[in-house]
Amino acid sequence: MCTNDLRNSVIFAIGDKFAGDFFTGTVWLNMLTPFGSALPIANVTFEPGCRNNWHSHAGGQILLVTGGRGYYQEREQPARELHAGDVVQIPAEVKHWHGAANDSRFMHLAIEIHPGKGPAT
Amino acid sequence: MCTNDLRNSVIFAIGDKFAGDFFTGTVWLNMLTPFGSALPIANVTFEPGCRNNWHSHAGGQILLVTGGRGYYQEREQPARELHAGDVVQIPAEVKHWHGAANDSRFMHLAIEIHPGKGPAT
Repeated sequence: MCTNDLRNSVIFAIGDKFAGDFFTGTVWLNMLTPFGSALPIANVTFEPGCRNNWHSHAGGQILLVTGGRGYYQEREQPARELHAGDVVQIPAEVKHWHGAANDSRFMHLAIEIHPGKGPAT
Repeated sequence: MCTNDLRNSVIFAIGDKFAGDFFTGTVWLNMLTPFGSALPIANVTFEPGCRNNWHSHAGGQILLVTGGRGYYQEREQPARELHAGDVVQIPAEVKHWHGAANDSRFMHLAIEIHPGKGPAT
């Protein structure tokens, strides 16, 4: 199947459906490097309309958007629309959420900064 | 232009030509997050036939291959062919090189682990 539409592009395997209370909707998760390693890297795919809840990371996080269309918002800031090629540097302890637009999947790599400082809250 | 051929896919901007003695051939570099930050992430594009010299990283490095075809080799190991979607976890202090096949560009993200431990040698 030939397509110019990056909304369906998945360079890294989509992984497994991730169930939990941290998300509204369906998300897929593939750990490219393991949890608990020096540099955990996740490939995250949000189904249309799926977003995570407000949360923060003790050491901060970086999002590298690889496909689709979605949003990122920090507390007390307007939501920022994201597309393939965008980079988001999330500071430590800053409350935020991210997820897909209602009409598009949304795929990004998520990399913890200073993972030793603790999990997401 | 419509293509299934990921060898030409570039999700992140290609950046600028990088000149220096560390490479045979032409390489392009786009820092997605800055040098000197807590987590420097580079988008690296090797022109066909271009490879870097034997080197190592004090804290280790992770390569996330986003397109093209290339090789990775550690000292005293056979060369490993790489394609879009491959992940390479390079241990600290291990001598290695990576670069493009002779007939293809090669694109990967490169992320330093523990960048505070020092530069590549």
